[in-house]
Amino acid sequence: MELLEKTILEKGKVLPGGVLKVGSFLNNLMDSRLLKEIGKEIYSHFKDCGVTKILTIEASGIGIACVTAQFFDCPVLFAKKSKTSNVDGEFYTADCFSYTHQKSNVLVVPKEFLGKDDNVLIIDDFLAHGEATKAVANIVEQAGATLKGIAIAVEKGFQGAGDEWRKKGVDILSLAIVDKMEDGKIEFRK
Amino acid sequence: MELLEKTILEKGKVLPGGVLKVGSFLNNLMDSRLLKEIGKEIYSHFKDCGVTKILTIEASGIGIACVTAQFFDCPVLFAKKSKTSNVDGEFYTADCFSYTHQKSNVLVVPKEFLGKDDNVLIIDDFLAHGEATKAVANIVEQAGATLKGIAIAVEKGFQGAGDEWRKKGVDILSLAIVDKMEDGKIEFRK
Repeated sequence: MELLEKTILEKGKVLPGGVLKVGSFLNNLMDSRLLKEIGKEIYSHFKDCGVTKILTIEASGIGIACVTAQFFDCPVLFAKKSKTSNVDGEFYTADCFSYTHQKSNVLVVPKEFLGKDDNVLIIDDFLAHGEATKAVANIVEQAGATLKGIAIAVEKGFQGAGDEWRKKGVDILSLAIVDKMEDGKIEFRK
Repeated sequence: MELLEKTILEKGKVLPGGVLKVGSFLNNLMDSRLLKEIGKEIYSHFKDCGVTKILTIEASGIGIACVTAQFFDCPVLFAKKSKTSNVDGEFYTADCFSYTHQKSNVLVVPKEFLGKDDNVLIIDDFLAHGEATKAVANIVEQAGATLKGIAIAVEKGFQGAGDEWRKKGVDILSLAIVDKMEDGKIEFRK
């Protein structure tokens, strides 16, 4: 997606250790027009999939998910991060290691909000090692719901998680795939 | 706002201790059409205030804020919750006690994202004791920005924080004000 790639080049910051900061337009400070264009692109790709629910992860996925849901006219469900899986039987839970914060979370979704009749589109701002996406996909499976696809704003292609999903035949749409970040220079996949 | 009050009556749950659960339509699972109508109402009230930035708090305020920002065509900034105020000088911070979780958080906003030229509209899903709203308003003040108003989906009127803002002359719009919750029955302010 041209606008997203352009914005990453203009406003993204490459930090040591393969970190790409997009806080000034995608999470933390969120550019409304960019969110809208992202929502349009995601809708255009998945509009015929009968999506009944968008599933995302707090906090930074919520903005993209809610704006995208305006196109799908469907509800957004977000997985909360909890420190413990010791919740009662009314929740689906899945472990999730955050490389950014170097700690484990448990993602938690109330069972009453996701069921076998749901066609789910997972949306998140970032796909890097893919732990969070795997965890919510696991929750979709626990619920007996159907995973229709995964939509990501920025995929770090060199960390491999996106290609793993592609190999499995999952319909994954990444609006910008960063294949290289060296000496502060960003290269996108064509 | 009629649609919001109707939805609260239909789908809200009153729990012991004055707790109102709106997880099935406003946070956790979010009803897209309701978010859109909320956004429209907020825009209609504040559209002539020259709002340059919407400020909200992770996680549940982000959805309403981002959909509302589509009407204002302005960016959304969210305060992150941190356990420590021991962050470097590049952040505004404000303490915030959460009655829901019975613990203190520090709200954190990078200084680069908020400044004296900003006209800020604070948006949140809930106003109860008002700790979070006070904390972000404090951050607006630290930044030397102008607070144009506060928009809330559900205010618990009986906990007083909304009326405190009104007494101070702040333009606060609450789309549903719950003045009583007794024996599971909800009464709205007229």
